[in-house]
Amino acid sequence: MSAAEIQSLHVQLAQLNTKIETDEKSLNQFFLVVMGSFVMFMQCGFAFLEAGAVRSKNVVNILIKNVLDCFLGAIIYWAVGFAFAYGDMPDKDSSAFIGSKYFFSIYHEEYENYRANWFFQFVFAATASTIVSGAVAERTQFGSYLIYSTFITAFKVYPVVSHWGWSNTGWLTASKITSFHFAGSGLVHCCGGIAALVGAVFIGPRVGKFETVGGVKRSNNIPGHSVPVASLGAFILFLGFLAFNGGSVLAIVDGKTDNGEALAKSVMNTIIGGAAGSIFAISINLIVAIIYGEPQYWSLLVCINGGLAGMVSMCAACDALNTGAAFGIGAIAGLTLFWVSTVLKKFQVDDPLDAFAVHYGGGVCGILLSPIFAEYGIASVPGCVDQEDNFLETWNAACPANQIIQDQATNIFECDYYAYKQWTWNLIGLLAITAWTGAICIVMFGTLWYFDLLRVELDVEIRGLDIKKHGEPGYPTAAYGHGWDEEGSA
Amino acid sequence: MSAAEIQSLHVQLAQLNTKIETDEKSLNQFFLVVMGSFVMFMQCGFAFLEAGAVRSKNVVNILIKNVLDCFLGAIIYWAVGFAFAYGDMPDKDSSAFIGSKYFFSIYHEEYENYRANWFFQFVFAATASTIVSGAVAERTQFGSYLIYSTFITAFKVYPVVSHWGWSNTGWLTASKITSFHFAGSGLVHCCGGIAALVGAVFIGPRVGKFETVGGVKRSNNIPGHSVPVASLGAFILFLGFLAFNGGSVLAIVDGKTDNGEALAKSVMNTIIGGAAGSIFAISINLIVAIIYGEPQYWSLLVCINGGLAGMVSMCAACDALNTGAAFGIGAIAGLTLFWVSTVLKKFQVDDPLDAFAVHYGGGVCGILLSPIFAEYGIASVPGCVDQEDNFLETWNAACPANQIIQDQATNIFECDYYAYKQWTWNLIGLLAITAWTGAICIVMFGTLWYFDLLRVELDVEIRGLDIKKHGEPGYPTAAYGHGWDEEGSA
Amino acid sequence: MSAAEIQSLHVQLAQLNTKIETDEKSLNQFFLVVMGSFVMFMQCGFAFLEAGAVRSKNVVNILIKNVLDCFLGAIIYWAVGFAFAYGDMPDKDSSAFIGSKYFFSIYHEEYENYRANWFFQFVFAATASTIVSGAVAERTQFGSYLIYSTFITAFKVYPVVSHWGWSNTGWLTASKITSFHFAGSGLVHCCGGIAALVGAVFIGPRVGKFETVGGVKRSNNIPGHSVPVASLGAFILFLGFLAFNGGSVLAIVDGKTDNGEALAKSVMNTIIGGAAGSIFAISINLIVAIIYGEPQYWSLLVCINGGLAGMVSMCAACDALNTGAAFGIGAIAGLTLFWVSTVLKKFQVDDPLDAFAVHYGGGVCGILLSPIFAEYGIASVPGCVDQEDNFLETWNAACPANQIIQDQATNIFECDYYAYKQWTWNLIGLLAITAWTGAICIVMFGTLWYFDLLRVELDVEIRGLDIKKHGEPGYPTAAYGHGWDEEGSA
Repeated sequence: MSAAEIQSLHVQLAQLNTKIETDEKSLNQFFLVVMGSFVMFMQCGFAFLEAGAVRSKNVVNILIKNVLDCFLGAIIYWAVGFAFAYGDMPDKDSSAFIGSKYFFSIYHEEYENYRANWFFQFVFAATASTIVSGAVAERTQFGSYLIYSTFITAFKVYPVVSHWGWSNTGWLTASKITSFHFAGSGLVHCCGGIAALVGAVFIGPRVGKFETVGGVKRSNNIPGHSVPVASLGAFILFLGFLAFNGGSVLAIVDGKTDNGEALAKSVMNTIIGGAAGSIFAISINLIVAIIYGEPQYWSLLVCINGGLAGMVSMCAACDALNTGAAFGIGAIAGLTLFWVSTVLKKFQVDDPLDAFAVHYGGGVCGILLSPIFAEYGIASVPGCVDQEDNFLETWNAACPANQIIQDQATNIFECDYYAYKQWTWNLIGLLAITAWTGAICIVMFGTLWYFDLLRVELDVEIRGLDIKKHGEPGYPTAAYGHGWDEEGSA
Repeated sequence: MSAAEIQSLHVQLAQLNTKIETDEKSLNQFFLVVMGSFVMFMQCGFAFLEAGAVRSKNVVNILIKNVLDCFLGAIIYWAVGFAFAYGDMPDKDSSAFIGSKYFFSIYHEEYENYRANWFFQFVFAATASTIVSGAVAERTQFGSYLIYSTFITAFKVYPVVSHWGWSNTGWLTASKITSFHFAGSGLVHCCGGIAALVGAVFIGPRVGKFETVGGVKRSNNIPGHSVPVASLGAFILFLGFLAFNGGSVLAIVDGKTDNGEALAKSVMNTIIGGAAGSIFAISINLIVAIIYGEPQYWSLLVCINGGLAGMVSMCAACDALNTGAAFGIGAIAGLTLFWVSTVLKKFQVDDPLDAFAVHYGGGVCGILLSPIFAEYGIASVPGCVDQEDNFLETWNAACPANQIIQDQATNIFECDYYAYKQWTWNLIGLLAITAWTGAICIVMFGTLWYFDLLRVELDVEIRGLDIKKHGEPGYPTAAYGHGWDEEGSA
Repeated sequence: MSAAEIQSLHVQLAQLNTKIETDEKSLNQFFLVVMGSFVMFMQCGFAFLEAGAVRSKNVVNILIKNVLDCFLGAIIYWAVGFAFAYGDMPDKDSSAFIGSKYFFSIYHEEYENYRANWFFQFVFAATASTIVSGAVAERTQFGSYLIYSTFITAFKVYPVVSHWGWSNTGWLTASKITSFHFAGSGLVHCCGGIAALVGAVFIGPRVGKFETVGGVKRSNNIPGHSVPVASLGAFILFLGFLAFNGGSVLAIVDGKTDNGEALAKSVMNTIIGGAAGSIFAISINLIVAIIYGEPQYWSLLVCINGGLAGMVSMCAACDALNTGAAFGIGAIAGLTLFWVSTVLKKFQVDDPLDAFAVHYGGGVCGILLSPIFAEYGIASVPGCVDQEDNFLETWNAACPANQIIQDQATNIFECDYYAYKQWTWNLIGLLAITAWTGAICIVMFGTLWYFDLLRVELDVEIRGLDIKKHGEPGYPTAAYGHGWDEEGSA
C-alpha cells in the first residue's frame, strides 16, 4: 500500500480506460460502415424501383443513372460535397450557411472519424440525387442528367441544406430550438422531393401521358415494364431505411449514452411507420374506388409507395416517437401520398415514380407532425407547467440524439411553450429547404430547358433511349429463345 | 494510500464498469438490429423464391402477400403478437401457455432492450406466415390470406408456440430438460410447415396439377415463370439464414460468455448443413432418376430446396453441433426433402413451393437428430458414466445458449441417460407444436373452406389473379418493345 | 488501505480486463460474421452479373454453378481447403508452401476464433472459383465444372496461393519485405483471373463469337439476355466489395489499434477507386469511339466492369492509400480494363464476362501501383533519407495492417530504398501467383480438353444447356400469358 502501488493502480485504470475508448472509437466506425453499407444498397433499391417503373426501352438508361449517382457522386462528394456540408470553419461568418474545408479530403485528420463519416454522409447524398432521376425518367438528356445530379448530390443543393441542419455550425442547428432533423425527412427527402417536382415540371410529361379528349383532360396510365423488378427495389429500400434511420444515431458506444436504445427505437418506429403508411395508402385507394364506383384493386404499387412514404415520415424523429405516434404519423403519410399524387395528376405533372408525393409528402408529414406527436411534443406537453422542473434532464435522457443545451442566460426553457416554438422552427426549416432547393432547381432546370438541353428528341423518346443512347437494349431479342421447342422455353 | 484514495480508486473502477456495461447494452442492441435486418431481408428472399415459382399471371398476387406479411404483420405483432409470445406474467398460471403483457408496447420499459428484441422476434414471426403463402399460391382469395396470416403470424398460432419454447415462463423452457429450440427448427419451421400443409390440403390442388389419364393418376409439372427470379430469392435466403441462426444468440457481449463463438459456430454449421442438404438432395434426385431410367438432370430448384432444408435443420442446434454432425443432419434433411416431396405428390397435395417438405421435413430432422448427434448427445454419451462427474459444467461451458440448471433436490443429471430424455422432450415439443398448429389451422382453413372463402373463382384462377384482383399485370405488354427494329430489342 | 484492499483492487482490475477482452473476442467474431455475410452475398452478385450476361437458354446453367460454388465449395473448403491455406505447422519446412492441419475442422480449438475465420476465408475462396465460371460460360460440361471448381476453390490452387500471402508461415509473408496483399488483389483476383484466362483459351470461343469474313477476322457481339439482371449483380458486388476490402482488417477491437480507421479507410478507398475505374472506363470507351468515328454510347456494362476493376485494384492496399492515390490507381484500372479486353478480343479469346480484364487487369494495377502511390511508397519516399530516422514507427502507426518487423541484426531498413524493394517483392508475388495458378490450370484444363471433357456437344451449345442438362428452362413459355387479353399482359 505504498504510494507506488497506488500510482500503479492509477496507471492500470488509465490503461483500461484507454483500452475501452480505443475500442469505442473502432466500434463506432464499424457501426457507421455497417449502417452505411445498408444505406448504400438503397442505390440498388432505387435503381430497381425505377427500372421496374419504366418501359423496357428505357431501362438501361435509368440503371446507368443510378450507377453513376453512386460513382460520379462519390468523386464529387469527395472533391467538394463533404466540404460544403461539414467543413465547419467556426471562426467564419459564412459557415452558418456553407462549409469550406476538407476538399479532396485535405486536412481530414482534423475531423474525428472522417472516413467513416464521409462514407455515411456520402450514401445519404447519393440518395437525394436519385430521387430526382425517378421524376424525370424516360425523357431526359444524359448530359443534363450529369449536370443536375452534380449540382444536387454534391455541389450546391444537398450539401448546403445538410450543412444547415447537421453540421455543428449550420444555422438550423445553431438555434436554441432543437428541430427534428434526425435522419432527414426535410434535409434529404423534402430537398430531393422538391428538386424532383421542379425537374418534372420543366421537362414536361412523357408523350402520351396526358391528352385532351373531347375537351376533357385525361391522364393515361403508362405502366412500367416489370412489377417484380420494382418490388425488388422496394424490398431493398424497406431494408435500407432501417439503417438510414437507425444509422443516424451516428455512434453506438460512448460509455455514457444508451445509443443502442435510440437505434432500436428508430428501427422499430421505421417499421411501424412504414407499415401504417402502406396499409393506409392501400386502404384509401380502395375506399376512394368504392366511393367513385370504380373497380377496386389491392394495388401492390400503392402498397409499396405507401410504405416508403411512411418510412420517409419517420426520418424526422424516429428516435423520439413512441410507437403509437409512429403509427399515426406513418398513417397520415400514407394518406398524404394518395392526395399529393392525385393533385399532381390534376395539374398534369408527370412524375412516373410519384417521387414528389413519396418524398416531399412523406417528409412534410415527418417534419410538421413530429413536434406535435413526439414525446414531450405539443400533444403531450399541455402548456408550460410540465416543463418547469427538470424538463431538460428528462428530455435529454429520453432523446439522447436530440440533446438540448440550455441557455444559462436567458433560461428560455422555463415555462415557454417550447414544443410550439419547436413546431414553428421545424416549419421554418421546411420553408427554407423548399425555397433554397426550389430556387436553385428552377434556375438550373430552367436554364437547361431554355437552351433545349433538358429533353431528348421526340423521336428518341418514342422509340426508346437505350438503343440510341446506350447501344444496349435491356433485353436483346437475339439473346432469347432456344432449340428445344418440344420441351418448353428458355 | 489514504482511505480517500482507495475510495477514489473504487469509484473509478465502478465508473469503468458502468462504462463497459453501458457499451455492452448498446452493442447487444446493435447486434440484434444488424442480425434482424438480414432476417428481415429474408422477406424479400421468400417473396422472390415464390414469385419465380408461380406463373406470370399471379406474380403480383404473391408479391403483395409478401409485402403485407411484413407490414400487416408488423402492426399486429406490435398490437398483440409480441404480448402473447413474450408477455411473461410469472405469477399467473396461464403464462406457461400464453403471455399477456406489452400489447401495443405498453409497459415496454419493463422489458430489457424491448425494442431490439421486438424487432428481432417480429422478423421471425413474419417468416412463419410467409411459409404458408407459398403452399397456397396461385389460388387463394386475398381476404382469406388476410385472415390466415393474421392468425398465424401474430395472433394465436406462432406467438403461442414461440411462447412455449422461447419465453421465460413457457412450458417447454420451464422443464428441467433442455430441448433444442435455438433458432426454431420446430417453433418456426415445423409450425409454418404444418400450417402450410393444412392450407394446401383444404384449398386443394391448382387446376391442371393432377389428372387421371386412363385410370392412372398423374402429377403434371406446372413450372414457375422465372428460374432466375426464384434463384435470387434463394440466394437472399441463404444469406438470411446465417443471421436467422447466428442472431439467435440474442446478445453478443456480456463480459462473461464467448457469444461470438456461438455466433460463429451457428454460422459455420448453417453453411455446412445447408451445403450438405443441397448436395444430397441433388444427388438423390439424380440417383433415383438413374434407378427408374428417367432422364437425369442437375436440377437447380432441387439444389435450392435442398440447401434450404439443410439450413432449416440447423435451426434446432447449430450452436451445439460440431461440423461433422452438421454435415450429417443437413444431408439427411436433403434426403428427407426428396421423400416428403414425393409422398405429398402421391397424395395429390399441391404445394407449389414444397414448403412443407422444406420447412417441416427439415425442421423435424433438426429436432429429432440434434439430440442424437449434438455434442454430449446420445451418440457421444454412451450411457451414464460420462455424465457423472462434471457433466453440467462441461456442457454449460460448451453450449452457453443451452444452459442446464441442475435441480439440487432430485439431482437428476447424475447417471440418468440425460441425452435420451432430451430426445424424448424434443419429440414432445414437436408433437405439441404439430398438434396445436395443426388443430388451429384445421379449424381456421376448414371454416374458410366451408364458407367457400378460401379459393378464388375457377375462371379467375385460370385467367390469372393479377389483373382481376390487383389491376396490375406483372409484365404489362404495353411496356415492352421499342422503335429500333434493326438494332435489337429492348 | 491494507494489503488486502490493494489486492482486492488488483483483482477487480484484472476482472475488468478479462471482461473487456472477452467482449473484444466476441466483437471480433461478430465483425467477421457481418463482413463475411456481405462477402457471401457477392456469390449472388456474381451469379446475377453472369446470368444477365449469358443468353436465356443458358441461364439456369450459370446459376446452378454459382449456387454450387457456395455449397460444394463449403464442403471442400471445410474438408481440405482451409487446412491447405491456414494449417500452419511452424516446425515443418513445407509450411512455407502449403498448410496441413485442420482438415474437417479437426484440432480447430487450437486456432483462435477458428469458425469466424473459416467463414470469412471460405467466402473469399468461393469468389476465386466464381471468377472462372464467367469466362467459360455457355459452353462448359457440368462435370468439368465440378472438377475445376474443386481444384481452384478448395484444393490446390487458391488455398496454396492464399497460404503464401496470408498465413503466418507462407513464404510471401515470412519475408522481411511487406508486400501489399491486404484484401487480395493478387491472391484472389489475379489467381482467379489467370485461371479464367487459361480456361477460356482451352475451351475456345463460343459458336459465332469470331468469324472470318473475306479474310478479315471479326468479333461478333453476343449480348447477354438481360441488362437489368446483370446490373443487379453489379450493385450487389459493389456493396460486397466494401466488406471484402473492409473486412480484411480481420479484427475490429484489440484495445490498442484503431482498426476502425483501417476499416473506414478501406471502405472509402474502395468507393473512390471503384468510382474512378467506372468513370475512366466509360470515358475511354467514348473517346476511342470518337477517335475511330464509331457511334458513341454511354455504356452501362462498361461502367459496371470499370467499377469492378477499380474496386479490384483497391484490394491490394486500400488500407494504406490516401484518397488521391486510390483515385489514381482506380482510374488506371479502368483504363487497363479497356485495353486488356480489347487485346483479348484481338487474340480471339472469348471471355463473355471480361473476367480476365476485370480481375487480372485490376489486380495487377493494385499490386504494381500500390507500392508506388501508397503512403510511404516510391512516389512519396524520394530515396533513402526519409527512411533513416523513425521510419518504422511512423509506417507502423500509419499502416496497422501492414506492420513491418525490423530485423535487428541487419537493420535493413536504414537507408535502403525500402519502397523499391517492396515494389520488387510485389512483382515477385504476382509472378509466382501467375506461374503457379497458370501452370496448374494449364495441366487441369489441358487434361480435360485432351479427353474432350471440357466442352458440351456442339448441338447442345447451339440449342442451349438449360433444357438438355438441367431439365429447367429459365423462363418456361408455359408459365407466361393470361386470360385477360383486353386489359394488358401478365
